[in-house]
Amino acid sequence: MEKSEGRAVEIELLVRFAETDAMGLVHHSNYPIWFEAARVAWMDWVGLPYAEFAAAGHHFAVTGLSVQFRSPARFGDAVRIQATLATVRSRQVIFHYRVENAASGALLASGSTEHICVDLQGRMAQIPNRLIEQMALRGISTLTTMSHMGTS
Amino acid sequence: MEKSEGRAVEIELLVRFAETDAMGLVHHSNYPIWFEAARVAWMDWVGLPYAEFAAAGHHFAVTGLSVQFRSPARFGDAVRIQATLATVRSRQVIFHYRVENAASGALLASGSTEHICVDLQGRMAQIPNRLIEQMALRGISTLTTMSHMGTS
Amino acid sequence: MEKSEGRAVEIELLVRFAETDAMGLVHHSNYPIWFEAARVAWMDWVGLPYAEFAAAGHHFAVTGLSVQFRSPARFGDAVRIQATLATVRSRQVIFHYRVENAASGALLASGSTEHICVDLQGRMAQIPNRLIEQMALRGISTLTTMSHMGTS
Amino acid sequence: MEKSEGRAVEIELLVRFAETDAMGLVHHSNYPIWFEAARVAWMDWVGLPYAEFAAAGHHFAVTGLSVQFRSPARFGDAVRIQATLATVRSRQVIFHYRVENAASGALLASGSTEHICVDLQGRMAQIPNRLIEQMALRGISTLTTMSHMGTS
Repeated sequence: MEKSEGRAVEIELLVRFAETDAMGLVHHSNYPIWFEAARVAWMDWVGLPYAEFAAAGHHFAVTGLSVQFRSPARFGDAVRIQATLATVRSRQVIFHYRVENAASGALLASGSTEHICVDLQGRMAQIPNRLIEQMALRGISTLTTMSHMGTS
Repeated sequence: MEKSEGRAVEIELLVRFAETDAMGLVHHSNYPIWFEAARVAWMDWVGLPYAEFAAAGHHFAVTGLSVQFRSPARFGDAVRIQATLATVRSRQVIFHYRVENAASGALLASGSTEHICVDLQGRMAQIPNRLIEQMALRGISTLTTMSHMGTS
Repeated sequence: MEKSEGRAVEIELLVRFAETDAMGLVHHSNYPIWFEAARVAWMDWVGLPYAEFAAAGHHFAVTGLSVQFRSPARFGDAVRIQATLATVRSRQVIFHYRVENAASGALLASGSTEHICVDLQGRMAQIPNRLIEQMALRGISTLTTMSHMGTS
Repeated sequence: MEKSEGRAVEIELLVRFAETDAMGLVHHSNYPIWFEAARVAWMDWVGLPYAEFAAAGHHFAVTGLSVQFRSPARFGDAVRIQATLATVRSRQVIFHYRVENAASGALLASGSTEHICVDLQGRMAQIPNRLIEQMALRGISTLTTMSHMGTS
């Protein structure tokens, strides 16, 4: 269900009937949920499962979201969602996403989310060092140059 | 948006496009969410807003749910959801619901939810006295006889 | 992701963060969506993918839903959902479900859904012969005796 | 529930418990759904109810979505969502949105959606003349200058 190529992590999901709308296609509000599932898989991959991260008193609050929809997804389609850490600053992280039809490889959507790290009281906090170290171990510090993702 | 007739509280909602599915109708998973919205309105009505109830360390965990679907709801329909407290025991409450098309009055669905009171650690707790008193003030103690609701 | 034991089909899902609520647990409205995903896998297993079934002009409208919640599911849990065809009549099918924690095997919820077959105009229709034949091939005609499922 | 000031339409919603997540706040995937509800109210206001628009064979497919989250919404909050038509081109419309806490007036989020008009087969189509006329009647043609919304 998951693999990582370079600094990206991919998950694959089957479109649920409940995710469709009366146009017969996946409702656009599901893409942020798919992005999140891929982001959570990315956290697992760098050795910081989100459940542990949260248990340690941290959360990544979403401060920005953008999605560009290219081609619709339909009930029963297998979709592949790729999450890439694009930017890390002391208090902000940005992830980029691609959603593809798993059978054809066709690009369905791309997008990004911006996050700040907050504590359990919702106050802005620094990104935990352990997360930054884990990223460095994986060469992620250079990801800030990945401006060619073209999602903004 | 809300009124109470006897011991029931009603809310009215406009069906959202996001609540439809590829059959062109409201997806059945939305009815429990509508039931909950009506249940929350019921709590407001008896003077125990759910947010305060939760802040005081209590939650009504859902232990059972049943829905009978009679006629579909569609995007743009105004629907009326009626919540009635049906049964109160020391550790359990049961609510009954009716969902009607607000324009025609046609019955769309009926159902019930069963709840236990839990504390913040998820342990079963007694129904707070204040809630039982509020119910008694409104003659709700006799609701246990409302077996004619026909939802079980 | 899927296997079939006897007449049941199982799928496994990772709980999404978006499926949780402010109690810190999976919101109960997600279980009907998980049931549906397992039901769709069941249809695949008997050789009648739901997308084809729908393309042929048929839908299984949900006429009844019940869920008994035993133990909560949490963000990040792997859950296993088992769907079993319990009853087939000329115009009605009933599925039973079990939701388990995939790691511990603990029962989280059980439930059932009742369906009628409808055509694209929403009129009640007979269950397609092809579906009944496929069920017979798999010995499913005897499932009507599975009253020990304990979901009613 | 709705009012229009100048060219904007506002709706007010009560945050549902089901819209919260385990951080205790509204999950970000609900904002596109709220945007849509306000957009549908906007269509009603210009005399083109979306249900009629769709029945006439048209849909506004969402091609882009962006949201900036400023302050969280919580269960039980009343939120006010304002939709404004920002840009109309022959084949594209852009709406801007503001989400405010209805009690305090505090800005919770802003955002935009981009749409193309498609027919029932999903092919790109011209914006119906009737919609453009209705907009002109309401002075909406000048909205293309509203670049101070700051949502892009």
